[in-house]
Amino acid sequence: MTKIDEILREALKMYKPTPSEEEILKRVSEKIVREAILESSRYEGILDVTLEGSAAKETWVRGREEVDIFIHFDPTVALETLEKTVIELGFKVLRKLDGNPRLMYADHPYVEGRLGNVIVNIVACYKVNPPNWISATDRTPYHTKYVKEKLDQNARDEVRLLKAFMMCCGVYGAEIKMRGFSGYLAELLIINYGGFMETLREASNWIPPVVIDIEKHYKSKEEVLDVFGERHLIVVDPVDRMRNVASAVSEEKFSEFILASKLFSRSPSISFFKPREEIISKTSTIRGNGERCIVIVYFKLSSIKPPDVLWGELKKTENGLKKYLESSGFTVYRSDSWTDEENICLIAFELPSLTLPYVKIHQGPPVHNPNVLQFIDKWIKNEDRIAGPWISGTRLYILRRNNIRNVVEIIRKGLSENRVAVSKGLAEDLRKAEIYTSIEEVGNTRARKFLELFLDGRPAFLDRYEG
Amino acid sequence: MTKIDEILREALKMYKPTPSEEEILKRVSEKIVREAILESSRYEGILDVTLEGSAAKETWVRGREEVDIFIHFDPTVALETLEKTVIELGFKVLRKLDGNPRLMYADHPYVEGRLGNVIVNIVACYKVNPPNWISATDRTPYHTKYVKEKLDQNARDEVRLLKAFMMCCGVYGAEIKMRGFSGYLAELLIINYGGFMETLREASNWIPPVVIDIEKHYKSKEEVLDVFGERHLIVVDPVDRMRNVASAVSEEKFSEFILASKLFSRSPSISFFKPREEIISKTSTIRGNGERCIVIVYFKLSSIKPPDVLWGELKKTENGLKKYLESSGFTVYRSDSWTDEENICLIAFELPSLTLPYVKIHQGPPVHNPNVLQFIDKWIKNEDRIAGPWISGTRLYILRRNNIRNVVEIIRKGLSENRVAVSKGLAEDLRKAEIYTSIEEVGNTRARKFLELFLDGRPAFLDRYEG
Repeated sequence: MTKIDEILREALKMYKPTPSEEEILKRVSEKIVREAILESSRYEGILDVTLEGSAAKETWVRGREEVDIFIHFDPTVALETLEKTVIELGFKVLRKLDGNPRLMYADHPYVEGRLGNVIVNIVACYKVNPPNWISATDRTPYHTKYVKEKLDQNARDEVRLLKAFMMCCGVYGAEIKMRGFSGYLAELLIINYGGFMETLREASNWIPPVVIDIEKHYKSKEEVLDVFGERHLIVVDPVDRMRNVASAVSEEKFSEFILASKLFSRSPSISFFKPREEIISKTSTIRGNGERCIVIVYFKLSSIKPPDVLWGELKKTENGLKKYLESSGFTVYRSDSWTDEENICLIAFELPSLTLPYVKIHQGPPVHNPNVLQFIDKWIKNEDRIAGPWISGTRLYILRRNNIRNVVEIIRKGLSENRVAVSKGLAEDLRKAEIYTSIEEVGNTRARKFLELFLDGRPAFLDRYEG
Repeated sequence: MTKIDEILREALKMYKPTPSEEEILKRVSEKIVREAILESSRYEGILDVTLEGSAAKETWVRGREEVDIFIHFDPTVALETLEKTVIELGFKVLRKLDGNPRLMYADHPYVEGRLGNVIVNIVACYKVNPPNWISATDRTPYHTKYVKEKLDQNARDEVRLLKAFMMCCGVYGAEIKMRGFSGYLAELLIINYGGFMETLREASNWIPPVVIDIEKHYKSKEEVLDVFGERHLIVVDPVDRMRNVASAVSEEKFSEFILASKLFSRSPSISFFKPREEIISKTSTIRGNGERCIVIVYFKLSSIKPPDVLWGELKKTENGLKKYLESSGFTVYRSDSWTDEENICLIAFELPSLTLPYVKIHQGPPVHNPNVLQFIDKWIKNEDRIAGPWISGTRLYILRRNNIRNVVEIIRKGLSENRVAVSKGLAEDLRKAEIYTSIEEVGNTRARKFLELFLDGRPAFLDRYEG
C-alpha cells in the first residue's frame, strides 16, 4: 500500500459516514419527505415531493449531513404562488419536526431548518422536461438522476474525498461567500476523471481556459468557448448544454484548487484533510505585527438577512471602499471581509501607509486642449497648488496638497458624505462603524481569528505547507 | 497703436542692436574672418572661409552676439584631418586675437572663444552641393543663403522678437541642455508665418503632429509623416528635404511654446520679454517647504568637458537614477538636473516620501506556471515574507519586507554596488556624491537658485503669469 493510499484511507475514515450514520440520515430524510408529502396534499399544483442533493446521491461528507427536499410544482403555477407556498409549507413541516425553520435565499427563497446535526432545505422547483426550465432549481432532480446513474459505490467515496479535500483547502461551496466548487461540480469531476487522485493529477496540469464536456454536447473546445465566452473553467452541464456548472467558481478559487492539487501531488499529507482550525493554532504568529498598516471597518448588523444576501452586500461594500481608498490616493495591497452572519461585519485593508503623502500629482489637460487656460487660471492662485503647472509630454501637471491625510479620517468623511459606493443594505450600519488600525482593538474573538488569518494571507491549504 | 504694438516696440528696444552695436559686431567678424583666411592659407584642402549664423543673417539678439566662422574643406579631405585641422586653426586664430579658445563638441569638435562680449565659434564643413552632405555642418552655408534671401529688414526684427520671446520663455536653443528651438528654426517660422504675432497666433492653435514644409518638398502632410514618422513637430528643411529642422525639439519644449503662445496672445505683457532672473526674485517663496520630500544628489566634477557632452551624461544619469528609484519602490513625482558646466552637478527628485513602506507587493508566477512550486519553496520559509503567498486572478503574490527603507541609504547602496544605470563619464564623481534631503543643505548659491525653481516647478513663462 502506497503512502497516498494510506492517506486516502485515513481521510475516508474521517469523512465517510459509518453504516449506522447512513441509516440515521436515511431515516431522517424519509421522515421529512413523509411530512412534506402530507403537507403538500393541502395545496393545489404540487405534483411531487422528492429527496435530492448529496443525501439522495449518497455523496455527503460526514459532519456535513444535509437533506434537500424538493417540492415539484405544476408549470402553470405562478412563480409568486410557488414561492409563497414553499415558504408556508417549509415552515409548517419544519416547525412540526422542531426543525427551527428560517427563510433563506439563493436564486429564490427557500426554507432551512435543522434536525439534530442535519441541515434540512425545503426547496421549490417546477416539474418540467429539459430544456424547458422555468426556475434555476428545475434542473436539480435531473442532476440527481444523472449522478446516481454514473457513480458506483466506490466512485461515491472518491467524491467524498474530493469534497473533503476541497473543504479543507477552502475552495468548496458555490455560495457568494466562497465562490468555489459546488457538490455537483465535484461529482462531475469524479465522473469525468474517474477518481480523486486522477482529478488532482489532471487539475495540477490545468491551464486556463479549462473545458470539460462529459456528454460531448459540443464538437470541440473552441465551440464551447464560442458559446460561453473566454472563462477560466467551463464544465458543460450534462443535463443542460447551455449551462456552465462552474460559472460560480471565481478565478482565485479555480487557481487555488490547481495549486492545492499540485502541492498535494508533490507532497501528499493527511494535513490537507484536516480542518483549518486544527492547523492554524500551531502556526499563527503574525509577521511584522505593529509595523504593518491595517485598517479595519468594523460594524454591527441591525437586521438579520440570508447569508448570500449579506455576503453579496459585504463584498460589494469592500469593493466600493477599496475603490474609494484608491481614488483618495492610497494603494490597497489587499482586502477581505468577514461576518459571523448574525451580528458583526468587518472589512479589512492592508496598505503601504496609513497616511497620504503631503502632495499628490494632479493631471491637467494637454496644452492643445481648449480648457488649458481654464486649468491654469483655476490653479495658479489656489493655496493647494504646491508646485507647477509643469509640462510632461504634452500635458500639464501640478502637485496638489492632500488636505486630509489620515486614512481613518478619509474613510469617515467618505462614509458620512456618501462618497463611497457601499451596498444600500449596509449603508445605515456602516455610518456607525468603528474604524480600527490594529487588530488588538478588535474585541470579538472570531473576528480577531479572521484578522490573524487575513494578516497571514495564505489560503487554507498553504498555511499548512512548510515546503 | 495697440497694446501689443507697444509691447513689441519696447521688446525690440531691448533686443535689437543699435546701429553702432551692429557696426561693432560687423568689424569684429571681419577681423576674425581675415585672420582665419590668413591662417587657412597654411593648410591644404581649405577652399573657403565664410561668416555664417545670426551675424551673417543679421538676426542676432542684442546681448547674444555670436560669430560663426566656417572653414570649408575639400570633400576629399578625410574627416579626421578636417577635425584635427579646424581645432589647430581655431586655437591659433583665437589665441592670436586673445579669444581664450576652448574645445567644444556638437556633432563634431569645434573651437569656441570670446572677444569682449562676442562668442566666436570656428567650425569646419565640407564644401559640397546639396544633397551630397558629408558632415552635419555642410548645410549651414545654404541655410544662411536661404534665410538672407527670404528675410527683409523688417522680418529680421520679427525673428529677433521671436528668439527673445523663446529665450525668456525657456524654449530657445537646440543644445542637449534645452532641447528647444534653434535660431534657424525660429527664422523658418517667421518665413513661414510672416511675423512674430502671426507665429504666436498659429502656434497657439498647434495640435500635434504639426508639419511645416515651406518649399513644398512634399505633396501632403501625410507624405511628410510617412517619411519622418509620427512626431510632434516636423519642419522640413528648405535646403534638404530629408531633414527635420525641429528634430531636436522635445515634446515638452514644443508644448511649452504652444502654451506660452496662448498665454501671451491672451494677456500680452512685456514681462514675457524679461529675463527670468528679474521676475523670480519677486515671487520665489517655496510652497510647502519642509513638508515636501526632496532628494538631491550633489557632486563635484573632476574634469571639464563640453557642455553638450556633460548635459547628455547628466540627463542619462538622471534617468538611470529615476528608474532605479522606481524599481526600488519609490514613485518619482518629478526630477531635474543642473550643472554650472564647470564644477558642480546636481540631480534632484521629488517623491511622495523619503521612506519606503514596511512591506511591498512581490509578484510571483501564475499557478499554472511550472515554476510555481519553486516560488513557494523559496519564500515560504524566508524571513522577509510578511504575508502570503495568496492568489489574485491566477497569480501568486506575497508581501515582502523592505529591508532598506531610507532613500539616502538606497541611493548610496545603488551607486556603490553599480546597480544604477549612470553615465560612465560621471560614475567616478558620483561615488563621492553628497545626498541631501533639503535645499538648505546646499551651500552653492546658483545650485540653490536652481533648486528653488525646481521646487516651484513652473516653466519660465508661467512663473510670471498670475492669471
